Amino acid sequence: DFMYALENDIKPAFGVSSEDFELFIRNGIVLWSEKIQEVLEEGKLRINQTIKSEMTPLVTILLEGKANSGKTALAAKIAMESEFPFMKFCSPQSMIGYSELAKAEAIKKVFNDAYKSELSCVVVDEIESLLDYAPIGPRFSNFVLQTLKILFKKLPPKGRKLLLIATTSEQELVKDLGLYQSFSKVIHVPNITRGSEVMAFVEGLGCFSNGEMSRLSNLINHKFLSIGVKSLLDTIELSNQATDALRIDKFIDALEDIGGLHD
Amino acid sequence: DFMYALENDIKPAFGVSSEDFELFIRNGIVLWSEKIQEVLEEGKLRINQTIKSEMTPLVTILLEGKANSGKTALAAKIAMESEFPFMKFCSPQSMIGYSELAKAEAIKKVFNDAYKSELSCVVVDEIESLLDYAPIGPRFSNFVLQTLKILFKKLPPKGRKLLLIATTSEQELVKDLGLYQSFSKVIHVPNITRGSEVMAFVEGLGCFSNGEMSRLSNLINHKFLSIGVKSLLDTIELSNQATDALRIDKFIDALEDIGGLHD
Amino acid sequence: DFMYALENDIKPAFGVSSEDFELFIRNGIVLWSEKIQEVLEEGKLRINQTIKSEMTPLVTILLEGKANSGKTALAAKIAMESEFPFMKFCSPQSMIGYSELAKAEAIKKVFNDAYKSELSCVVVDEIESLLDYAPIGPRFSNFVLQTLKILFKKLPPKGRKLLLIATTSEQELVKDLGLYQSFSKVIHVPNITRGSEVMAFVEGLGCFSNGEMSRLSNLINHKFLSIGVKSLLDTIELSNQATDALRIDKFIDALEDIGGLHD
Amino acid sequence: DFMYALENDIKPAFGVSSEDFELFIRNGIVLWSEKIQEVLEEGKLRINQTIKSEMTPLVTILLEGKANSGKTALAAKIAMESEFPFMKFCSPQSMIGYSELAKAEAIKKVFNDAYKSELSCVVVDEIESLLDYAPIGPRFSNFVLQTLKILFKKLPPKGRKLLLIATTSEQELVKDLGLYQSFSKVIHVPNITRGSEVMAFVEGLGCFSNGEMSRLSNLINHKFLSIGVKSLLDTIELSNQATDALRIDKFIDALEDIGGLHD
Amino acid sequence: DFMYALENDIKPAFGVSSEDFELFIRNGIVLWSEKIQEVLEEGKLRINQTIKSEMTPLVTILLEGKANSGKTALAAKIAMESEFPFMKFCSPQSMIGYSELAKAEAIKKVFNDAYKSELSCVVVDEIESLLDYAPIGPRFSNFVLQTLKILFKKLPPKGRKLLLIATTSEQELVKDLGLYQSFSKVIHVPNITRGSEVMAFVEGLGCFSNGEMSRLSNLINHKFLSIGVKSLLDTIELSNQATDALRIDKFIDALEDIGGLHD
Amino acid sequence: DFMYALENDIKPAFGVSSEDFELFIRNGIVLWSEKIQEVLEEGKLRINQTIKSEMTPLVTILLEGKANSGKTALAAKIAMESEFPFMKFCSPQSMIGYSELAKAEAIKKVFNDAYKSELSCVVVDEIESLLDYAPIGPRFSNFVLQTLKILFKKLPPKGRKLLLIATTSEQELVKDLGLYQSFSKVIHVPNITRGSEVMAFVEGLGCFSNGEMSRLSNLINHKFLSIGVKSLLDTIELSNQATDALRIDKFIDALEDIGGLHD
Ligand SMILES: Nc1ncnc2c1ncn2[C@@H]1O[C@H](COP(=O)(O)OP(=O)(O)OP(=O)(O)O)[C@@H](O)[C@H]1O
Ligand SMILES: Nc1ncnc2c1ncn2[C@@H]1O[C@H](COP(=O)(O)OP(=O)(O)OP(=O)(O)O)[C@@H](O)[C@H]1O
Ligand SMILES: Nc1ncnc2c1ncn2[C@@H]1O[C@H](COP(=O)(O)OP(=O)(O)OP(=O)(O)O)[C@@H](O)[C@H]1O
Ligand SMILES: Nc1ncnc2c1ncn2[C@@H]1O[C@H](COP(=O)(O)OP(=O)(O)OP(=O)(O)O)[C@@H](O)[C@H]1O
Ligand SMILES: Nc1ncnc2c1ncn2[C@@H]1O[C@H](COP(=O)(O)OP(=O)(O)OP(=O)(O)O)[C@@H](O)[C@H]1O
Ligand SMILES: Nc1ncnc2c1ncn2[C@@H]1O[C@H](COP(=O)(O)OP(=O)(O)OP(=O)(O)O)[C@@H](O)[C@H]1O
Ligand SMILES: [Mg+2]
Ligand SMILES: [Mg+2]
Ligand SMILES: [Mg+2]
Ligand SMILES: [Mg+2]
Ligand SMILES: [Mg+2]
Ligand SMILES: [Mg+2]
Repeated sequence: DFMYALENDIKPAFGVSSEDFELFIRNGIVLWSEKIQEVLEEGKLRINQTIKSEMTPLVTILLEGKANSGKTALAAKIAMESEFPFMKFCSPQSMIGYSELAKAEAIKKVFNDAYKSELSCVVVDEIESLLDYAPIGPRFSNFVLQTLKILFKKLPPKGRKLLLIATTSEQELVKDLGLYQSFSKVIHVPNITRGSEVMAFVEGLGCFSNGEMSRLSNLINHKFLSIGVKSLLDTIELSNQATDALRIDKFIDALEDIGGLHD
Repeated sequence: DFMYALENDIKPAFGVSSEDFELFIRNGIVLWSEKIQEVLEEGKLRINQTIKSEMTPLVTILLEGKANSGKTALAAKIAMESEFPFMKFCSPQSMIGYSELAKAEAIKKVFNDAYKSELSCVVVDEIESLLDYAPIGPRFSNFVLQTLKILFKKLPPKGRKLLLIATTSEQELVKDLGLYQSFSKVIHVPNITRGSEVMAFVEGLGCFSNGEMSRLSNLINHKFLSIGVKSLLDTIELSNQATDALRIDKFIDALEDIGGLHD
Repeated sequence: DFMYALENDIKPAFGVSSEDFELFIRNGIVLWSEKIQEVLEEGKLRINQTIKSEMTPLVTILLEGKANSGKTALAAKIAMESEFPFMKFCSPQSMIGYSELAKAEAIKKVFNDAYKSELSCVVVDEIESLLDYAPIGPRFSNFVLQTLKILFKKLPPKGRKLLLIATTSEQELVKDLGLYQSFSKVIHVPNITRGSEVMAFVEGLGCFSNGEMSRLSNLINHKFLSIGVKSLLDTIELSNQATDALRIDKFIDALEDIGGLHD
Repeated sequence: DFMYALENDIKPAFGVSSEDFELFIRNGIVLWSEKIQEVLEEGKLRINQTIKSEMTPLVTILLEGKANSGKTALAAKIAMESEFPFMKFCSPQSMIGYSELAKAEAIKKVFNDAYKSELSCVVVDEIESLLDYAPIGPRFSNFVLQTLKILFKKLPPKGRKLLLIATTSEQELVKDLGLYQSFSKVIHVPNITRGSEVMAFVEGLGCFSNGEMSRLSNLINHKFLSIGVKSLLDTIELSNQATDALRIDKFIDALEDIGGLHD
Repeated sequence: DFMYALENDIKPAFGVSSEDFELFIRNGIVLWSEKIQEVLEEGKLRINQTIKSEMTPLVTILLEGKANSGKTALAAKIAMESEFPFMKFCSPQSMIGYSELAKAEAIKKVFNDAYKSELSCVVVDEIESLLDYAPIGPRFSNFVLQTLKILFKKLPPKGRKLLLIATTSEQELVKDLGLYQSFSKVIHVPNITRGSEVMAFVEGLGCFSNGEMSRLSNLINHKFLSIGVKSLLDTIELSNQATDALRIDKFIDALEDIGGLHD
Repeated sequence: DFMYALENDIKPAFGVSSEDFELFIRNGIVLWSEKIQEVLEEGKLRINQTIKSEMTPLVTILLEGKANSGKTALAAKIAMESEFPFMKFCSPQSMIGYSELAKAEAIKKVFNDAYKSELSCVVVDEIESLLDYAPIGPRFSNFVLQTLKILFKKLPPKGRKLLLIATTSEQELVKDLGLYQSFSKVIHVPNITRGSEVMAFVEGLGCFSNGEMSRLSNLINHKFLSIGVKSLLDTIELSNQATDALRIDKFIDALEDIGGLHD
């Protein structure tokens, strides 16, 4: 572990500059439902609280939702809207192969950097992955957990304010580990569950022709399913490989296979 | 662990000077119920016992209550009222990323320093966090536990007296681990559970206008909820982001969301 | 572990050149059922998606089936058909005796190399073995799991595209560990379950004479069993040791013993 | 662990000279019941057996009782009455922060020193703490356990005799771990369970005036409770903080709170 | 572990030359039942498959049976009958005190050496002991397990052929660990279960006189028991210590005690 | 562990010369029942088997009985009666504080030394302690277990013979760990269970006067109890501290307390 940590210290590139935030919203934010707008509004409210509050210099929110539901993109979106002078992404993707010590150290560094700015926004993405969580056992890094637990509660120094946005697809885990209590607000990121929402989404993307859209509407508008936006994007891309004539059929096949589309 | 410990030895800044105690009471102590006054009185009694006792040179109390109930602020308040020449805070926040060896060593050092003063007061904040407690497993550092267990019982040298104030939000854990028996007294820190107590709290803070206060009273005075003072402060700050007209509505919304306000 | 890792660093021969892919299809791919053709077609569809997609630069499929069912050969076949400039095999057979750190490092290196090519195909063979999975306990390397989990989700850099083909004989494990959700598509590799499929397989191999084939057909054509192609090959070789007259009897004995041949 | 052990080797101050024994009886031994006298007599009997026996050069007794019942003081008392040339206290309080290796080594050293004297008395205080016992798990140091198990059975060299006095508040643990069988005798240290015993105890201490004593007698003489002498001392000291008029009331309040005083 | 491994590297005498194979058949192979002949024939069949097969260059069989049933002797017998240019015994007896790393390394070396010969036979004796299996827990070395799992499946390089003979007395363990599926054939090594089989065994050894044989036959021929050949040898030797007159009685006593001889 | 092992290598005094065997029979072997004679006879039989046997150069017996029943003394007695040129005691008492590696190494050395003599006898005392067995968990050293398991089965080199005598008070453990099967014979060491056996024992010792003996006989001759000889010796010594008149009463009191003496 020790040698390993040394090696990692040489390239401590775990920080993500504000440009990088855009990478996480690669395919934009489609407003396929009012629920998405509400998420973004709650975000703005908390941005304001962070700026104006006198008694609560630390404001913390948690975005929770199923895998592929769009949590990371929404967290990045809210962070970018804060336009705070300091913004950082704590993502497990930049900590592949880190020991738990190195991970905790990297996370701690993000927060310590944030404490130096008057207004900061830190995104802690995929809490469960930062914790090396495995459902069998279950196993997780208690060392990283303790670090997060304290950092989620620790007040920034006098005159500094911090907005913390965390994401997770393991809501129960976060609750059971006692991390829930430190969040001011838990916001649910919904899956797409109605044919009409799929319609709104593909309309937002503009990926099908008018003819395709009306045919699709007839076929799915009143049906139900459960699919995350990230899977839906994959489904759309797959159907694009089919010939024009078969595209909608292929799309509906995939919605049935992946999203369980039914009446 | 070894390299890590060395590094920590270089900056052993885990002590907290008496000024720092005020940080933990940042927003004051609002006397929203007689129960809070009773807590402070029990504190004074034990301060006196420590000073005058002949047979019990070690007096130990435990403040237990839900997360966000105000335990740390009350422990700091009692400690400051002792005005003992030596006062120290043992807080997990100053031990982020410590190994269990380093943690135990840091705690031990606080006590050894305390033993050198004729009258000392040590606050051991968040026992469960010092123990690296995780409810799943459950896991905890047995090494830190053993250290605390002995330090909570060990008498100071002849002529020295020590008041120990510990806090926890995991009362059952502390009981199950066999730490309970070493406390002279366990004091409950209550959550706010009545609308009238909320009224007393916001009156103490003076954060709403008279008109708002009377409207609020009509709406919640006879209702019930369960919320800690720290969450209540957050709720108040959030409602402050709303326009004057909507402030009370937003506040009540939040009390329902976070505190489960009901008839 | 440390000394061990050093030693392994000296011979990091875990990469497999495109020639080596043929080794995994040593005995060819016999099309003993339409189901095998469907597997290969789904493979082609995903190859195309990888090449043409704009929104999904990472396409991931999982081949799952019983032990000996031919998963590795089919994964190699699909990979070869992609004809991508970069192709690599991540196989536990090239990591015998690696520590979990060394394993994770080796896997990470394959992906990092893949990210450098515009179009890449990586085969991650026998996920359960890479995880050092043992059903008793159960035990597995959480460190390798976390590495795989992130690599299966991490998007390649702008302008790069990656087709990931994984195989497993422990479908439930992969599901329970939360790896399932990151696959665009899970493809089942079937066992041979009918006498007529055995006939198709041996016909494809051309290992029996016409007379033997018609006798075999009479004896097993309408029977049922469950056997993987790899075990079937073994069964055929065993029967070849018998004299010509006894070969078919020996073959049927073995099908009963290994495949549970019955009416 | 290794560096840690080195550090400990430099200050191996785990021995306790015969003067130190008095520290453990700081507040004397009050004979509040015949049961206490019986404990001391059994102690004398075993002292004699150690001196005169021909076949049993190792005599071992265990004092077991609830937390705060006075075990350590009684063990120290018996040891002092032996007046053996070699006497040592094995107390977890002198081993705070020791690794299990260092602990076992320290214990072993006490016994090896004892074997050098013709007549020795070793007190092994709080077996459960020496074992780093935590009820959750449960966890304990198997290394220290094995060391104690053997030392509790190992005969001293020819011509040497050893009296071993151990204490524990976890009788069941000691039984379950198989340590019980090596004790010649297990002696129960009782809690105070009757009002009349409380009277005898405070009379022995002489801490209340005659008037207070008779009022107290009226109020509690026929009541029941369960409290250890160490807690009772704490209760008395607390009541001393009250004004003279309120002292008895405060005392009875505390007996109810801590000892469950009832009819 | 590291220092330990170094030490072991100095004397890597884990290989066993073909002479050594005879040691494992010290007392010969008595053909006390047709079942033993069948075991040897299945062995020959697999030897031939290894030599002649084109598609299966790796042939693997598992001998399983109760403790003392003669597994090791039969595995050695089959290996010797192959007369392959390379033969090696992987026995836990030559790896006493090895760490799991050293064990896995030693096993791997045997296989790597085998891959260098055109025709090789490797005996992996007592899989459960190589795995450091303990039924309580259960515990086993996952590191050795993973090594065996891969080596049991890995095809030798082009042009090389390998016959692998493994033995175990823990059939269920081998199944539960997922090692079963890689064997071409599992062969049961039976215990002696009838008096008549005992008769055949002692006749094969020629250890009793004619008179003794007929008396024995009268007494046990129609009885039942369950005993392994290794225990039976011990029983015979024990009865040999008795006087001639008592030998048969002593032998029958021992068969009852060890083998549960009954009608 | 490593530094620790080095230190132990400096004083490898784990061997016990034949004189030392007498230490374990300090108080002689009293033949208080025929059962004790039978144990010694079975011992002699196995000594002879070791000397004369042609097919079984390794003879192994296990003495099992309750704690304090006299197992160690009987094992030492049998070993001494063998008068083999090489005799060694493997006792946990000479391995206090050894790591499991050091322990296994020490045990292995005893056997390797034994293999050098034509006729050897090794006593492996208290298997459960060598295994660092703790009933809670349960825990044990798998490393020592594997070492013992192999050493209990490994045949000595050609021309060498070995008698192995092991003892345990944890028969079920030995069975559950799979060590049982390697013993040729398991011999039960009984507790004293009848008043008449106590009479025989004290008569053998000659510790009471005639008058005392007849009074004792009247009081206990037809009663029942369960006590090991080692505890009985302790009981006798304790009663010796009483005045002559009270000695028998004290003795019977102790038999009731320790042995549960009843009608
Ligand atoms: N309304 C939306 N909300 C979120 N993402 C959206 C939305 N509309 C489009 N997207 C696109 O969908 C993708 C969402 O992927 P994202 O990685 O955020 O999902 P996720 O829930 O974090 O997945 P995972 O569970 O794997 O972490 C992004 O490419 C984003 O640009
Ligand atoms: N009566 C009161 N008791 C305690 N705190 C109060 C009271 N009135 C106001 N406060 C303020 O409420 C806040 C209480 O926060 P504190 O950190 O003490 O809570 P806590 O119970 O320790 O939380 P946690 O469970 O997270 O450790 C402080 O800012 C304090 O100034
Ligand atoms: N239709 C087929 N599908 C797969 N393999 C086939 C097919 N026809 C013939 N084969 C041959 O069968 C063998 C299949 O072995 P393979 O190693 O792929 O099985 P596997 O399922 O990966 O086994 P394991 O579970 O041990 O990993 C190869 O030698 C391959 O050439
Ligand atoms: N009869 C008595 N028996 C024991 N202690 C007594 C008695 N009378 C007075 N004392 C005093 O009571 C105190 C007993 O405390 P002691 O530390 O021995 O309790 P303990 O049972 O060892 O506590 P713990 O469970 O915390 O180890 C000592 O200060 C001792 O002087
Ligand atoms: N038919 C037979 N099969 C096997 N062994 C036989 C047979 N006849 C005689 N023997 C002798 O019996 C002994 C069998 O011992 P072996 O060590 O092979 O048993 P095992 O089953 O491997 O024991 P373990 O379970 O302890 O590993 C050998 O000495 C062998 O020479
Ligand atoms: N018949 C007897 N059998 C065994 N020991 C006897 C017998 N008669 C007298 N003794 C004496 O009794 C004592 C037996 O103690 P020993 O240490 O052998 O018991 P043990 O069963 O090994 O105890 P433990 O369970 O603690 O290991 C010895 O001092 C021995 O001399
Ligand atoms: Mg995400
Ligand atoms: Mg707090
Ligand atoms: Mg495969
Ligand atoms: Mg004590
Ligand atoms: Mg064998
Ligand atoms: Mg013994």
